[in-house]
Amino acid sequence: MARNTQVSADHSAPAITQILAKFVATHPSRGWSDAVDHEAHRTFMNWLGCAVGATGHQAADAALAAVQMLQPAAQASVLGRATKVDMASAALINGITSHTFDFDDTHLKTIIHPAGPVASAVLALAEHTGASGRDTIDALVIGIDVSCRVGNAMYPDHYDRGWHITGSTGTLGAAAACARLLKLDTEKTAMALGIAASQPVGMREQFGTMTKPFHPGGAARAGLMSALLAQHGFTASPKALEAPRGMMQTISTKNDWSEITDELGQRFEISFNSYKPFACGIVIHPSIDACAQLRAKGVKAEQIQRVDLRVHSLVLELTGKKEPADGLQAKFSVYHGCAAGLTFGYAAEEEFSDHVVNREDMVALRRKVVATVDDSIDEASADVTATLIDGTKVHVFVEHAIGSLQNPMTDANLEGKFHGLADNVLGVLQTNALIAACWELGSAANVAAIVKLATPTRHDD
Amino acid sequence: MARNTQVSADHSAPAITQILAKFVATHPSRGWSDAVDHEAHRTFMNWLGCAVGATGHQAADAALAAVQMLQPAAQASVLGRATKVDMASAALINGITSHTFDFDDTHLKTIIHPAGPVASAVLALAEHTGASGRDTIDALVIGIDVSCRVGNAMYPDHYDRGWHITGSTGTLGAAAACARLLKLDTEKTAMALGIAASQPVGMREQFGTMTKPFHPGGAARAGLMSALLAQHGFTASPKALEAPRGMMQTISTKNDWSEITDELGQRFEISFNSYKPFACGIVIHPSIDACAQLRAKGVKAEQIQRVDLRVHSLVLELTGKKEPADGLQAKFSVYHGCAAGLTFGYAAEEEFSDHVVNREDMVALRRKVVATVDDSIDEASADVTATLIDGTKVHVFVEHAIGSLQNPMTDANLEGKFHGLADNVLGVLQTNALIAACWELGSAANVAAIVKLATPTRHDD
Repeated sequence: MARNTQVSADHSAPAITQILAKFVATHPSRGWSDAVDHEAHRTFMNWLGCAVGATGHQAADAALAAVQMLQPAAQASVLGRATKVDMASAALINGITSHTFDFDDTHLKTIIHPAGPVASAVLALAEHTGASGRDTIDALVIGIDVSCRVGNAMYPDHYDRGWHITGSTGTLGAAAACARLLKLDTEKTAMALGIAASQPVGMREQFGTMTKPFHPGGAARAGLMSALLAQHGFTASPKALEAPRGMMQTISTKNDWSEITDELGQRFEISFNSYKPFACGIVIHPSIDACAQLRAKGVKAEQIQRVDLRVHSLVLELTGKKEPADGLQAKFSVYHGCAAGLTFGYAAEEEFSDHVVNREDMVALRRKVVATVDDSIDEASADVTATLIDGTKVHVFVEHAIGSLQNPMTDANLEGKFHGLADNVLGVLQTNALIAACWELGSAANVAAIVKLATPTRHDD
Repeated sequence: MARNTQVSADHSAPAITQILAKFVATHPSRGWSDAVDHEAHRTFMNWLGCAVGATGHQAADAALAAVQMLQPAAQASVLGRATKVDMASAALINGITSHTFDFDDTHLKTIIHPAGPVASAVLALAEHTGASGRDTIDALVIGIDVSCRVGNAMYPDHYDRGWHITGSTGTLGAAAACARLLKLDTEKTAMALGIAASQPVGMREQFGTMTKPFHPGGAARAGLMSALLAQHGFTASPKALEAPRGMMQTISTKNDWSEITDELGQRFEISFNSYKPFACGIVIHPSIDACAQLRAKGVKAEQIQRVDLRVHSLVLELTGKKEPADGLQAKFSVYHGCAAGLTFGYAAEEEFSDHVVNREDMVALRRKVVATVDDSIDEASADVTATLIDGTKVHVFVEHAIGSLQNPMTDANLEGKFHGLADNVLGVLQTNALIAACWELGSAANVAAIVKLATPTRHDD
């Protein structure tokens, strides 16, 4: 498997981001020649003339009509808060929050987290337009099908290259879903997809920072706006995805078109969605599950001398942080995941809090974990052996972790996870009502009940 | 020169965009099994719990604070219209209009159109914040330096791959300029650049559609929002540009870091900006100039039997449309450019209007142009021979077209061009005042006068 290597990566680059940032922030005002300053005025005037001159063009009419659909601003809810913003901003923020804990869903064939971009765009648009629950669910299924099929076509080369595939394909999924919800015809839907094709979002270097969850949010926002632009007559290439200099060939060296066309409308990629039982990157889950099973077998954290972990190289490449400094970093530390599994038997958001990550016993236990690469082990599996202080060895091999397609979360598991996330924000009773509303969404008149129940009644912000 | 070829382009792709659009627009509601529909509800509920659960995270606080800076919406002007929208939307729309006529500026080393993304973001932010003219010009110089230096580092491979380099580097330029205007420190400026690094915009396949000018607009918008997010504490990788899976290595196989670091703060890329005399792609300019010179030598359109044009292969690759159907397509037709040069002696926006493009004499004259690839001719040059009906041959070779660095537009040329664009929108007197205000911008208290003068007083919309 070539997935864990990047062709011709250059690790010797100077600190370009910092060098440019220092220049931007500290270079003195007018710290250049008169000729440069005059050129700046020429550049500005030339730009201004072009903008004024084209102001009556139909592209300007279409773009202005689209952005004016975001006004007035109180259109769609920020989930969990008593705050409304324009629907594009709501798509952005709900896309960010849904992926902030790295606790959402995974289309395992591509490591896409499909709901973040698509559901965030769909719910914001549906709230504002009063769309039915049925139309909302339809848009979700169809949007996820588009993003995951494009992901199937490009994976793994596209991901290897450095793209966060959730954001790069998510823009298309969000555009498709919003076009569907707006009931655009085939031609305008193609334009929506085409506009979105120019806006893939997300680099893997951002993992461990807030910009990682920005990716599904930015994709949701861009996809929603692409659909609004298309609705008002904005145009794009009708071959924007597949052309030699279209999106897919520009951002991936592998493009298996049959992944998009085969069984379209018959096989739905949402069928292959999975839900995280643990609040971290999916590749850590088998290791946490294995350590939780060690704990269930009676292994106690304080008895442990050493933990030998054997995993696929991708696991350490993505989550090899040995000494995570905070909760966000710990989500990319298989070492912390093992310590949490051994100590608590699970690893929800609280177990990835700054507080728990920096507990002395957790730091000590993490340091007892010795990880070894073994590419004969699937990336969805983990092999763990605990050596106790008395010399006893206890072994667990997890082929398919809880939450995988082979060992899925039940509906009751999902409800339990939902309570763990929402009870503190909404209270248990309101959370129960919200869960019931979710199950009934497909037959609801609109999404108003969902949105109201996802808004805390106990406090404002 | 490898610039005109794309590695392993696949021209055999099925019509993926159309196939997906038809599926999205026409697949029946609930056209799937109960299991798929249940999975959709599970996907939605799982997503909703994650979004509600993380609503109090600092990433949500920062993102919400940033988008709330866009309210209330009437913050910044749509140039040429008596309309205000939020500043991010103004950046988007003014970025679109400034590039709609393909008549703006060109950083010739990279074919970047630098002002579109940077000036559009800067003016919208400056209008809303009341920034000084000096700070506005400083931000413009510095933002353009960042985008063009990154472009220098990645060009030509990045462009060959299919990226519209104006939009892909423009997001960084706009983020840098807005960070500067917001007076962010080095650390927050690095975060602004880092957030922007996940949002390169634009594929070359879009050339000839409204999504081409969307690219600088989308870059302006994304860069401005990246700076607002950074201002409120949103984080990104401090190595987001240069890391192996950062922006630059993900979207370009060539990265010459010294192009960014050499003479930083001493050499300014805005010095190498040029301004288009003709309202179309820069590679057509030498051909138009040559044909205008033929006309100046007394060649009349009705005398022409045949025109032999010899140009670099890139010219035909980018602008080889033989039978443009409308004005937008004609901007990518060197054939139409030649016909306009021979007929009018120039080619401003009117000469690329649908009306002129479809005139019978223009259609007939275009068909007399025979273009031949000759890669011994520089892409900035053109060799044209007109054969008249009486057999006479007239030859012109243009090494550097008007508007090039070697043969630049004078300030008076720029003012003339500005009048051609703005007079119809603002009237001659107001346009004169606006030109004067542009030359004085560096010492203006703020940008209010510019913005007011760029707003038509004769009619609303």
